[in-house]
Amino acid sequence: MHLELAGTGSRRTVLTRALREAVRGGRLPGGTRLPPYRSLAADLGIARNVVADAYAELVAEGWFTARQGSGTRVAERVAPPPAAAPVRRPGAAPTPAPRFDLVQGAPDPASFPRTAWASAARRALAAAPVDAFGPGDPRGRPELRLALAEYLARARGVRADPERIVVCSGFANGLRLLAGLRPDGWAVEEYGLDFHRGILDAAGVRPYPLSVDAEGARTAELAGLPATVRTALLTPAHQFPTGGPLLPARRSAAVAWARSRDAVLVEDDYDGEFRYDRKPVGAVQGLDPERVVYAGSVSKSLSPAVRLGWLVLPDALVDGVLAAKGARESWASALDQLALAEFLGCGAYDRHVRRMRQVYRERRDRLVAVLAERAPAVRVTGIAAGLHAVLELPPGTEAAAVRAAGAAGLGLDGLSGYRHPAASGAPREGLVVGYAAAPERSFGRALEVLGGVVAELTAGS
Amino acid sequence: MHLELAGTGSRRTVLTRALREAVRGGRLPGGTRLPPYRSLAADLGIARNVVADAYAELVAEGWFTARQGSGTRVAERVAPPPAAAPVRRPGAAPTPAPRFDLVQGAPDPASFPRTAWASAARRALAAAPVDAFGPGDPRGRPELRLALAEYLARARGVRADPERIVVCSGFANGLRLLAGLRPDGWAVEEYGLDFHRGILDAAGVRPYPLSVDAEGARTAELAGLPATVRTALLTPAHQFPTGGPLLPARRSAAVAWARSRDAVLVEDDYDGEFRYDRKPVGAVQGLDPERVVYAGSVSKSLSPAVRLGWLVLPDALVDGVLAAKGARESWASALDQLALAEFLGCGAYDRHVRRMRQVYRERRDRLVAVLAERAPAVRVTGIAAGLHAVLELPPGTEAAAVRAAGAAGLGLDGLSGYRHPAASGAPREGLVVGYAAAPERSFGRALEVLGGVVAELTAGS
Repeated sequence: MHLELAGTGSRRTVLTRALREAVRGGRLPGGTRLPPYRSLAADLGIARNVVADAYAELVAEGWFTARQGSGTRVAERVAPPPAAAPVRRPGAAPTPAPRFDLVQGAPDPASFPRTAWASAARRALAAAPVDAFGPGDPRGRPELRLALAEYLARARGVRADPERIVVCSGFANGLRLLAGLRPDGWAVEEYGLDFHRGILDAAGVRPYPLSVDAEGARTAELAGLPATVRTALLTPAHQFPTGGPLLPARRSAAVAWARSRDAVLVEDDYDGEFRYDRKPVGAVQGLDPERVVYAGSVSKSLSPAVRLGWLVLPDALVDGVLAAKGARESWASALDQLALAEFLGCGAYDRHVRRMRQVYRERRDRLVAVLAERAPAVRVTGIAAGLHAVLELPPGTEAAAVRAAGAAGLGLDGLSGYRHPAASGAPREGLVVGYAAAPERSFGRALEVLGGVVAELTAGS
Repeated sequence: MHLELAGTGSRRTVLTRALREAVRGGRLPGGTRLPPYRSLAADLGIARNVVADAYAELVAEGWFTARQGSGTRVAERVAPPPAAAPVRRPGAAPTPAPRFDLVQGAPDPASFPRTAWASAARRALAAAPVDAFGPGDPRGRPELRLALAEYLARARGVRADPERIVVCSGFANGLRLLAGLRPDGWAVEEYGLDFHRGILDAAGVRPYPLSVDAEGARTAELAGLPATVRTALLTPAHQFPTGGPLLPARRSAAVAWARSRDAVLVEDDYDGEFRYDRKPVGAVQGLDPERVVYAGSVSKSLSPAVRLGWLVLPDALVDGVLAAKGARESWASALDQLALAEFLGCGAYDRHVRRMRQVYRERRDRLVAVLAERAPAVRVTGIAAGLHAVLELPPGTEAAAVRAAGAAGLGLDGLSGYRHPAASGAPREGLVVGYAAAPERSFGRALEVLGGVVAELTAGS
């Protein structure tokens, strides 16, 4: 029997591997009787017990069988499976990535505060109590809930008792938990994220779109919805993606509706910290913590790579959400939770948000400037806030604009893809431009391409 | 109007907070007309524009309304909600914790390698490419998939192409994904974790229990199951919780069944690294990677606080699992993935596992010794492996034993709770003892209490 004894490890490890490969490769077919220990040992110039150990190992793994009197054989049933074809996933196929990417959705990955995060993580790990490394509490780490309660009260006007905060692995995880608990009708904004609509669909929620204008969702429409609608999902700080801030009277109307119906508002505060024209407006949740679920995450403020978000819940929903999470935390990393608590507590989070506010504000200003110069007829709608903006386009031009951008190597979304399929208002056309994530070295050029596409398109109008 | 201007922040912040609190506390009822800027400013000795700013802020948040000509008023609809009652969750109620805890399920939290992990995390963060901080690939970070492929091949005999590894947030997350994809019949071991049965139930899976003896699941029974059964969930390295290693012939039989039926085995390798009597037996997956899903996690080897696990998938299942995960990673932290890749790559994982093998082996030996002395009639079943053992008890004594342990301040589980409700074999009685997680300072005393309980119970037998 020829065996190639190569690679690292003890003689026994090397021999075991070689025998296994011989079976796999078909060189030792099922049923083959293996040489006695002593003869293989002599052939290979190794000790007899090394061979005995290797055979025993492969018997235990099921490659060989050993029967009293008949020696060791290659197991019949482990005839070599067809050689694994080299895997080429569709996802891995070389679809040419756009040269310039202005698709909304993520903050600047290059600005992640690596050093500050690593030291916060190190301090947090050193200081953590032993129970932090045991099975996780589904509420989340107490250190993080305390830090969030303080931060959200201060930065977003949220009334956040740590006992009512439930940590989750991002907004989607939180939305799934809520949708599972409240599978009746939900009012949703007529423009929003398809991904979120999919989560509600999967939970069997029936959606009722509210129309949206420059001042956010028309919450007066809530009163006209069927009595089965008892949850409303809103983006009050900065309607996603159309960009209006929810008008004060509409905020109060939404809260009043929730009170009158025993309903709940879910406030998706996805980018509430990023306002460039004024101090951010406080969360609606502050108006009535028993009627508003406040939902936030670090996906826009830090990075979606840190899978952490939070729900600040009305008392009546805490037990249900915890029951839906189960007895132990299944998702959110306790290590990241400890690090984030320290990152918030030491002021690094505030510093990072302040810095990014400058960066994004400047990027938005550059976008506005390029458009003002190249295509003055095209309006950048919405407030100066967040990580994206919508460019309003003349009817009938959106698809052509997205196509032209793609042809020029520029990836971005049309507004139509954000429209709820059941929306009843007149559809609008536009481009949703994410200005946060593009690398600095290509951002200027991306804006030039965008300006060119839009200028050409609107040249006649 | 009396206002308490206290706390930190700018004058505007302090005034805004004081006005908000006055509305919340009911001191400024809905409809109240607020004093003009100039008079409140004079009263408080502050600049007029500070008052104007604070009013504007509260109008934006919905607390006040401002109408041309009628000045600023407290919004009618934000009459103070009933004061939030102090929250007392049932979970937070003081249920007296047992003084000694031998409930199975977790590794030693005090042994978490804090320093080694923090430095791996720091190095990994510094070295990571920028895209690591963007939206996550549902397959998981390439660094981690590469490190796992190398480690699992070496330590567990897994044939793990990185392209077939999908990272998840723990075994439960992986099981949920698989159950959703394969909602037909599943063969399961008649003893197992209720939590896992619940996941299969929730996905609509119909379970078919396989009987279990000292040599693991009787996989010969697979051939007799209905043709709709096309998945089998097994714990080959160390049947959970009864402790048998799956006999070589039973391994081959399971693989042969899977081939004959176009079925799949799910190999839950929850503690495969911890074997104390011999080198761990390689994974069944090595016998046929196209028929076995290998599932592992760090929940026993490192800590359940790190929410990371992995599936090594047959080619035919990769796309389905990725589709079930969605376009972006929703759960697993990229930061922890990077840290774990580095922790594996630099050898720290191997060192930690070697160290814990010594710690757990010694703890198991102490358990065996105490029982041999105090209750020689009681057998510690299963192989010397893992983080738990089962003590076989005479019929009719398990419930009394768990009660007596509880009365002595010792928390542990009876074996009955792990039995599948649909199991048909004769029920066994026993205690499931987790010896890994108890603090060293109380472990000896916990064993004494356990020895006493079992000795008393079996004194007559």
